[in-house]
Amino acid sequence: MADTVRVALIGCGRIAQVAHLPALEKADGIDLVAVCDPSGGVARAVARRYGVPSAHTDQREVFTDPSVDAVIVAAPDRFHHSIAAEALAAGKHVLVEKPLASTVAEAEALADLVDRTGLVLQVGAMKRHDQGVRFAGRFVAERLGEVRSFNAWYRIGDLRPGIEATLFPHVHADLAARQVEAGFKADRRRYLLATHGAHVFDTVRYLLGDVSSVVARHREDGKDQTWQALLTTAAGAVGTISITVDVPGVPTEGIEVFGSAGTVRVDTHFPFYRRASTVHAYADGLTTVPELTDGDAYERQLEAFARTIRDGGSPVPDVHDGVRAIRLIEATAAAVESGAEVKL
Amino acid sequence: MADTVRVALIGCGRIAQVAHLPALEKADGIDLVAVCDPSGGVARAVARRYGVPSAHTDQREVFTDPSVDAVIVAAPDRFHHSIAAEALAAGKHVLVEKPLASTVAEAEALADLVDRTGLVLQVGAMKRHDQGVRFAGRFVAERLGEVRSFNAWYRIGDLRPGIEATLFPHVHADLAARQVEAGFKADRRRYLLATHGAHVFDTVRYLLGDVSSVVARHREDGKDQTWQALLTTAAGAVGTISITVDVPGVPTEGIEVFGSAGTVRVDTHFPFYRRASTVHAYADGLTTVPELTDGDAYERQLEAFARTIRDGGSPVPDVHDGVRAIRLIEATAAAVESGAEVKL
Amino acid sequence: MADTVRVALIGCGRIAQVAHLPALEKADGIDLVAVCDPSGGVARAVARRYGVPSAHTDQREVFTDPSVDAVIVAAPDRFHHSIAAEALAAGKHVLVEKPLASTVAEAEALADLVDRTGLVLQVGAMKRHDQGVRFAGRFVAERLGEVRSFNAWYRIGDLRPGIEATLFPHVHADLAARQVEAGFKADRRRYLLATHGAHVFDTVRYLLGDVSSVVARHREDGKDQTWQALLTTAAGAVGTISITVDVPGVPTEGIEVFGSAGTVRVDTHFPFYRRASTVHAYADGLTTVPELTDGDAYERQLEAFARTIRDGGSPVPDVHDGVRAIRLIEATAAAVESGAEVKL
Amino acid sequence: MADTVRVALIGCGRIAQVAHLPALEKADGIDLVAVCDPSGGVARAVARRYGVPSAHTDQREVFTDPSVDAVIVAAPDRFHHSIAAEALAAGKHVLVEKPLASTVAEAEALADLVDRTGLVLQVGAMKRHDQGVRFAGRFVAERLGEVRSFNAWYRIGDLRPGIEATLFPHVHADLAARQVEAGFKADRRRYLLATHGAHVFDTVRYLLGDVSSVVARHREDGKDQTWQALLTTAAGAVGTISITVDVPGVPTEGIEVFGSAGTVRVDTHFPFYRRASTVHAYADGLTTVPELTDGDAYERQLEAFARTIRDGGSPVPDVHDGVRAIRLIEATAAAVESGAEVKL
Repeated sequence: MADTVRVALIGCGRIAQVAHLPALEKADGIDLVAVCDPSGGVARAVARRYGVPSAHTDQREVFTDPSVDAVIVAAPDRFHHSIAAEALAAGKHVLVEKPLASTVAEAEALADLVDRTGLVLQVGAMKRHDQGVRFAGRFVAERLGEVRSFNAWYRIGDLRPGIEATLFPHVHADLAARQVEAGFKADRRRYLLATHGAHVFDTVRYLLGDVSSVVARHREDGKDQTWQALLTTAAGAVGTISITVDVPGVPTEGIEVFGSAGTVRVDTHFPFYRRASTVHAYADGLTTVPELTDGDAYERQLEAFARTIRDGGSPVPDVHDGVRAIRLIEATAAAVESGAEVKL
Repeated sequence: MADTVRVALIGCGRIAQVAHLPALEKADGIDLVAVCDPSGGVARAVARRYGVPSAHTDQREVFTDPSVDAVIVAAPDRFHHSIAAEALAAGKHVLVEKPLASTVAEAEALADLVDRTGLVLQVGAMKRHDQGVRFAGRFVAERLGEVRSFNAWYRIGDLRPGIEATLFPHVHADLAARQVEAGFKADRRRYLLATHGAHVFDTVRYLLGDVSSVVARHREDGKDQTWQALLTTAAGAVGTISITVDVPGVPTEGIEVFGSAGTVRVDTHFPFYRRASTVHAYADGLTTVPELTDGDAYERQLEAFARTIRDGGSPVPDVHDGVRAIRLIEATAAAVESGAEVKL
Repeated sequence: MADTVRVALIGCGRIAQVAHLPALEKADGIDLVAVCDPSGGVARAVARRYGVPSAHTDQREVFTDPSVDAVIVAAPDRFHHSIAAEALAAGKHVLVEKPLASTVAEAEALADLVDRTGLVLQVGAMKRHDQGVRFAGRFVAERLGEVRSFNAWYRIGDLRPGIEATLFPHVHADLAARQVEAGFKADRRRYLLATHGAHVFDTVRYLLGDVSSVVARHREDGKDQTWQALLTTAAGAVGTISITVDVPGVPTEGIEVFGSAGTVRVDTHFPFYRRASTVHAYADGLTTVPELTDGDAYERQLEAFARTIRDGGSPVPDVHDGVRAIRLIEATAAAVESGAEVKL
Repeated sequence: MADTVRVALIGCGRIAQVAHLPALEKADGIDLVAVCDPSGGVARAVARRYGVPSAHTDQREVFTDPSVDAVIVAAPDRFHHSIAAEALAAGKHVLVEKPLASTVAEAEALADLVDRTGLVLQVGAMKRHDQGVRFAGRFVAERLGEVRSFNAWYRIGDLRPGIEATLFPHVHADLAARQVEAGFKADRRRYLLATHGAHVFDTVRYLLGDVSSVVARHREDGKDQTWQALLTTAAGAVGTISITVDVPGVPTEGIEVFGSAGTVRVDTHFPFYRRASTVHAYADGLTTVPELTDGDAYERQLEAFARTIRDGGSPVPDVHDGVRAIRLIEATAAAVESGAEVKL
């Protein structure tokens, strides 16, 4: 394979335009050669803006194009499984936005397909490529000692729309498509846990390993949702996760981990500030705060994807991480329903 | 009654010397007229230092002294109930260090005695007199809207002994007595939840009202202990409480409360810094941080006690708050044992 | 005039591509109808990206185009004066990047031209449109009382290139043109004070009014530069300004102002984070921190420019502010040379 | 000499009672054997409280007492020189509160006396014993590279009296003596620069070495005072010092130092919180924050004094530091008067 991975972007909606396209334009080792969106107008607009040679409305044209090495799946959540499966079947490597699929069964089917094809499937939980989260991961592994407890939070503040209006570039939209999507997002409870909660679940797994049990409480206030969960990890740490949408104020996201020899706190910024998480890592009388500048986790995710395709190895996160993240989402939803502890 | 309340201090150990005696010397409206400790040497040493007219080793001498209006019970936890009961029986108002008693039954017996005598019994949960916690309480009542969720934490850091060595005055100690106490504190699991956990439970109740259910997990690592609990309040808020002893680093304590119209965060400083909690209160696009200078919660607690005795009204917190705090401690311990939800 | 102001952008280099073009695409009430750059390749590339109808290499084509209401001058500093003068002579309103001109004499010539033509000339000191700086301005005027002292700082950290690499979009560049510019920037001492120092001088004037005297010290370490200045304002406040390029670490910029009744601290973020300055405003026992979301000062600057053209009034900052900022830069440079106080 | 240094405290006023006596009670290697104050009532009260064997009203009784190794001079500023001189003449080591003396001439006379007697004279600039300032000192020496610039500030906030009311123990005072002192402090301009400014001048010298020139501006607003000064160090660093009394809000004190390889920021807490300064030290992409617990600089100063007496070596700071601090104060006052640069 050539040094540069040639990718096609499938789905050119909001997340594609605010996150993936600006990152694709700058990422090293990766070249965007085609875009595809059901709305031809949107596909052509983004192709023009980013100088992409070809724009499609039918993804099959992408899959049959031998010049395409890999696809990025940024279509709505409910299409992740089918597009990823079709891409793998066509021999393309895949970077699929989280959540990997809508159900554990779908996700496992993708895992089988990956095993069978030997292709790279990376899940778009881009926080794992956040330099700060990486720093914290190393600190947990090397300095923190035995992990004993943790508290994680993901809170969408009601000031978020104003921040997005500032940070987002002008977005080319197809109004009809947007209305259809709004319908699917209308099951906010499911949507928010799967699409937003996914981040915190994946970060917990990245830093602390698998979760073995969850008890959860949920509260619904009109469009607002709150989840509070009590977790035990397979390694025996006890912790909490709080997910709240909307709370008054700015968005906040983070985790604190307490070990036998140190503690670490990660404050993750709203991703479109393109800042690495701020980390405070304490051990032996000193708190260390890395000053990290490579702050676009979407760009770093793409570069990691390209490196894995070129050099081999396991993508981060891989399809099995994607399966487990969905399992954790489903366990949390089940724990809310039953009121009792759910084992994983 | 005269304008100034004349009090006796029963128990002159460490907490008396580092917290109550310096506060008594400065508090308005209250006059320390006697001290009592099983160790005559300790009683005389503190009397000399603080210019207290009389020092006793037998608390009955205090109870029969008509010039004493009230007593402060700073003896070890297991004596709180009996000393407080004896004092009330002798017609003395009582300020009793938290926890109010060792069991719910003992605490309820004190509540009966208070009802019967009409005397003032205030529980020494002094954080309610922290100016910052007070500010937060008003903010929750007036600006935050409906309370939806919260997260509270109380973490004793392993740097605490060094901080205490700096902040504490020279403590006069009777070594034999100290060894006896160390034996009682040896059941760290019970001691820590009752003596330290009591603070966070009381603050949660002060800001959010009664708790109706609790699920809890616990972890023991040598002398270190972790509790993680998932709570529902009677008003329907869902939240978490984390209690950890020791974690690497400095002690931290606080609570965040999320409402429909605002949020508030309270960071409570190690009490012997004598600083009011730092509060960040958000509503309507503005975060407000009060700069509070009256930072000795022990002194404010004493002045509130004296005012209640002089002017009437209900002490803060009163005996019923003391009962409920113990009930919550016992429910948490029971939830750890059973693994299941405990209703209150 | 129509509701929407039709503007042409003159100079499509780095600052145009990272600041003005993304802002122009989103700003309300303003429409980018033409771009102009000596490099035809760059002009065409940005026109394609942002869907601008016409791209020029000769600015005279813009000046004679009757469909153009106003121009934005984003060419290198040394061309500000001549392009702005030509534009005004052609009847176009002008938004000119700071510094307004290279010398006080040039700047005053522009002021005369503005007076004669009655056209709008706004200087691109966009920090005045930073929501946080605005908040601070109102606080100084309404709550702070008499201004007594201040400290301002503008420090370019050596981590800035990494941050820019993350935040900046892909920039279309003409290498030959870039080399020419590098030559002009090679007089770093002059360039840095005029181009970077201009921000802090303008913010000081915005918040505190005119400066009446300056004493300054300077230090040069290879490519690094330090200015430390002691200032007195016409209203009698005494303060300091620190400008340092490069210091180890992240860029920092801000000002603290101390008055008779309050204090205010403004921490200005690196502009391409598109965050309003963080403000801590203290008075009467409360620190207030506004949570501000409209964080693109370049976009707000454009909208203010369009409103002034449509509705009349004085632009912020106007040509006289631009003159005074240069006077202050020159006074600082002169104070460094002489070692003595320079009166303005 | 015995392992424990036997000291007498001369002057038992407010600073003695809030700072030195609590520290003397706890410091290792030092034993308070006598106190002396013109007010016999005050001397006896503090002797009783701290269990000091003898209380005097005439300092000559202390100087002739062979059991006294050293004296701590905590009398009002104008007596520092004469008491220290008398003590040295009597063969006693001396710890004298800053400022060392009222004039450079007096201070130099003490330096001569120290040279002649070979006794230890330590100046009570206790911030040099602040663990955070020490950490910063090592960082400047080892990691920061060449020092290029700095900004220091010392601001007494108008909330200070409330904080003092909370933190200070009950103070035994002689009202007549207090009125006399108030008269001397009435020349606030001189008093504040010498007594409060002394701290920041000494910290600048400790971290950055000698100052070679100063330009200063001053402003007086009723009882409030502001100094802004521009300094050059002998090593060539350029910086500013801001001293303001009172500003609205809490007291703040600190310094930022910028070097070729790193930067360090020291935030010094109000001393009676007994917290080491908070330090942020940046180099090589990492900010380091030491978590320091030994926070009583007065206690550490005493222990250092005792160690120097026992083990030899130069006290920190020594008499020459004390002379230079006064020289810097006088230079600043002269710079205000003349408006011109004063060389040191």
